[in-house]
This record gives sequence, C-alpha cells and structure tokens, in this order.
Amino acid sequence: MESMIFINGSLLPRQEAKISTLDRGVLYGYGLFETMRAYGGRVFRLHRHLERLTSAAQILGLASELAKYDVPGAIQRTMAANSLTEAWVRLTFTAGEGERRLAPPTVDSANLMIIAEKMVPPAPVSYLAGIKAALVRQRRNSQSPLSRIKSICFLENLIAFTEAAAMGAEEAILCNEQGYLAEGNASNLFFVHEEKLFTPSVSSGILSGITREAILELAPSLGFRTEEGEIKLEDFLSADEAFLTSTLREIMPIVQVDDKIIGPGVPGPITQSLMAAYRDLVREETTSAPQD
Amino acid sequence: MESMIFINGSLLPRQEAKISTLDRGVLYGYGLFETMRAYGGRVFRLHRHLERLTSAAQILGLASELAKYDVPGAIQRTMAANSLTEAWVRLTFTAGEGERRLAPPTVDSANLMIIAEKMVPPAPVSYLAGIKAALVRQRRNSQSPLSRIKSICFLENLIAFTEAAAMGAEEAILCNEQGYLAEGNASNLFFVHEEKLFTPSVSSGILSGITREAILELAPSLGFRTEEGEIKLEDFLSADEAFLTSTLREIMPIVQVDDKIIGPGVPGPITQSLMAAYRDLVREETTSAPQD
Repeated sequence: MESMIFINGSLLPRQEAKISTLDRGVLYGYGLFETMRAYGGRVFRLHRHLERLTSAAQILGLASELAKYDVPGAIQRTMAANSLTEAWVRLTFTAGEGERRLAPPTVDSANLMIIAEKMVPPAPVSYLAGIKAALVRQRRNSQSPLSRIKSICFLENLIAFTEAAAMGAEEAILCNEQGYLAEGNASNLFFVHEEKLFTPSVSSGILSGITREAILELAPSLGFRTEEGEIKLEDFLSADEAFLTSTLREIMPIVQVDDKIIGPGVPGPITQSLMAAYRDLVREETTSAPQD
Repeated sequence: MESMIFINGSLLPRQEAKISTLDRGVLYGYGLFETMRAYGGRVFRLHRHLERLTSAAQILGLASELAKYDVPGAIQRTMAANSLTEAWVRLTFTAGEGERRLAPPTVDSANLMIIAEKMVPPAPVSYLAGIKAALVRQRRNSQSPLSRIKSICFLENLIAFTEAAAMGAEEAILCNEQGYLAEGNASNLFFVHEEKLFTPSVSSGILSGITREAILELAPSLGFRTEEGEIKLEDFLSADEAFLTSTLREIMPIVQVDDKIIGPGVPGPITQSLMAAYRDLVREETTSAPQD
C-alpha cells in the first residue's frame, strides 16, 4: 500500500504530496520539525512535542500559522490512513512563500506535513550489548539561536552522523565551541558517576529532548540524583556507565567512544534500571493517559 | 506574466514547480544554493559560482547528481523563459529522497531548481550615503563544516537580518565564536585603515563570496594593499572606511554600526574608487568574456 502523507489538511498519496519550490523551507531552511513515537496508537508525550514546536514557532514568527491546525487530530488521521499503531511520526512545518526575513508566509502558503511509518526499533542486541559512538571534530555552537530550536536546518547533524558511521559508530558525539560535552547527532547524552546521573545543561548548546526530560523526572524516583551542567569530555569518557536518549531509541547504552571503553564495556545496572523504568512509564502513559 | 521556474530539466509555471515533502532538503536542509546576478543577459563570474557549488556538492556527496545537468544552459533557458537580461538568479539543489545521512538520493529524486527575477538594485541613495549596520549577539561558528558551504540551512542568517532590521539597520554584522569579526548576514565585510584593505580570513568562519574574491583581485591593481586575517571588532569599528560586498549589492558602503559612525560617516574615497572599478570590471566581463 502506498503511504499517505498529511499535507495542509489533506491526506495524499506520497507521490502527490508536494510543496512549492518557493517555500522558504526549501530556500532557507525556514521551518521546524518534530519526530515522535507512537505506542499502541498513542504518541508518547505528544503535549511536550507540541509545546516545543509551538514555542519554536513563536520564536520564528510562525505561531499564528501553526495555530490554524488541529495537530493532534492530524497525527491521528495520518496514522489511521496508514493503518499504524506502532509508528515513527515526523512532522514538518515550513514557512511558505514570503519575505527574505523571519515573517509570516504569504496567505496560506505555510506547509504542515506529517509522515507516519511503521516503527522499526533498533535491534535488541544494541540494547543488550550497547553501542559504539564516535567523537567528531564538528562543534555545536551554544551561541546560536538555533541550538535550542528543532529547525529543519539539520545538515550539520547529517554530516556528523556520516562521519561517525564511517568510523563504524552508531552515533556521533559533539562537544560545543568551548570544548564541553554537548549532545549526540540525534540524541542527548547521560553518564553515571558514583551512582549519580550527569547530563549537559541546555546552555551547553543542546536541544533538550523529550526523552531527556523524562529521564530527569524518572531518575529521582528510582533513588538516583541528577545534575545538569557543563560537562568535561574526560568525565564522560571515564564514566561508570553512559547512554544516549532519543524519542525513537529511548535509552540506548553507550559502551565505547572511539577506542575508549566506557566502564566495564557492557550496559551498566543503573542504565538497565532506567531502561526498564522508562518502558514502564511509556506503557503507563500511552495506555492510561488521555491523548491530547 | 506568470514566472517560469526551471525544475529538473523542465520550465514550469510557478504554481506547478513543486518538490516532494520527502526531499531531504525539506526534511533536513540537505541542499545547496547560489545567488547570481546577470547583467545584459550574462551572469557575472558564473564559472566561480559553479565551482563553489560543485565543490560543496562534492563535500555533501551530491556531485554526480549535479553533474547530470548543464547548469549554464539551464540558467540561460530560465532567463529567456522570463524575458530577463538584468536578473537575480537563484539556484537551489536539494538531495532528494534517501537515507537519513549524507548519501546520494534515490534514483532521480534530487531537485535542481532555478528562479530568475528582474533585478531591482538597491536605491541609489544607499550607495551615495552608505548604510547603517547592526551588531547582533549571534555568533558564527568557525568550527562548523557548514560555515564555508552555501547550504540551504540559512535560517541563522534570516534571524540575524530580522534582528538587525528591528534596529533600523540594513545588514547584521556577526562575529565568530572567538569574538573576531566574521561577516554580514548576507555579505562579506571589508574596511580601510591607512589606505590598506582588511577583510576577515576564510578561517574566521565566513562564506567566501564571489564579490569578495573580485575585490581582493581588483584592489592591488588600484594600488591598495590587502590583508585577510583575524580581525578585531574594534579595528572594524575604528576604520577609516567600511563596506560590504555581495553578489546582488556589489559594494555597499557602511557608514554606521549601531551608534558608532565609521570614519567621517560618508562613503570614503577608496570605497568609491573600488565601486567604480568593480562596475567597470563587471561591464568588461559581462560584455566581452564568453559565457561558460
């Protein structure tokens, strides 16, 4: 069955879902996105994805355009049209035609697009054995207004991932311009030192992920203290345990960075207890909570 | 008359020139652009625009896709279809559908788009009186692989320009993450100190413009020494003369940055002689040189 894509209120076959070459998303990367994961037909923490999207749309002058849409309804329609319950959902919102500056689009030219595909989770062995990551030369810019916005200007991340993949790694690790630890190419980073969880602060130039937030809430209830701050790379590399968080991969243990083995080289006990607790949280929220 | 847009070998009316929502240009900003200016039907230094585009396409894994096109022919066809000789020409090349990393597109899904519009030059008074620029807080990242590539991830520049425009300025001036002068939001920067021309080096995190290159060639023939390097902001602000260079604006005098008046507050003699010499160069190259 050909996949159906939501575009501006309609569900169209993939081949027909198109946008103008004059859309400022195409011309200037003037647009936003969210990647979400649905479990049993419900997007985990949809309200947080929408809050982040709305907040970014305000910064970019697009909030009133976005407000024209019932986004939760559009996501449900897209999943239903593709008969999906376990889904990867990608929302893209571009600025449409208009001025060569931040400004609302010409009437009705903004584009809201939603793609939903069957979720294919990472192989179980990745969770059991942990993954290898690679440090890349590229630096995050903590002084860029885009570092905290999930804009479609995502090419740096593709470059970082490609560089890591060429080194046989599954994720690139980026420091910021001051040399402090920042984030993965599509994830946030955590590590454990003496039973305490550490993660780079938002001011380190990261995009604060929805899963990152959930872990920071969850950890204290399991008895683990947490700290957000400026993290030295050597502290990350000499950690007892390390993992990344992302919407699609949830919690993924990192057991090696370049040639450096993290801790004992296998997923640690605190990482494992967080993985189990996160899955319980997801089950609880996606089965009992009302979908907003 | 409705404008005609070149897309993948065809010239289509603006409303019909569309690309897939799954193009990685739309999803991830995975694409490149060039902005060119045609005088009397000929693009100034087209070969240099194409060299820069090709070099960037190589870095992004798209060179073989780009090589399928006769780009000079496509530009000429687009100008002819729109009956233009004095034109602003915007070329956009996006990666098409494919993997979520740097990789060639799925067969024939890359998109080459060319828009040509009548060139409306800045008002003569801007050249006669000079313009006001504004320093913005945002910093260029000299350590980003994108700082030297003209990618469609251009949203930072739109944000910078919008911030400058809100301060009543016509261009934003950006320093890099180390505090050195970098570039304008859509221009390169020059200043004159004791009859010598200074401009930030490429390693300052700038995109090296075609007009910038031309000025660096032209200045010595007029008897002015040039220096590229790491430039302190205060040296720029205390210059005798300052100007920006861009394909569309050519050489535009800057007479004020925020509240600071540059030199005597009017376009200086060296700036004026370069403006005249640049226009002679453009006339010479676009009337006598064979178009490649």
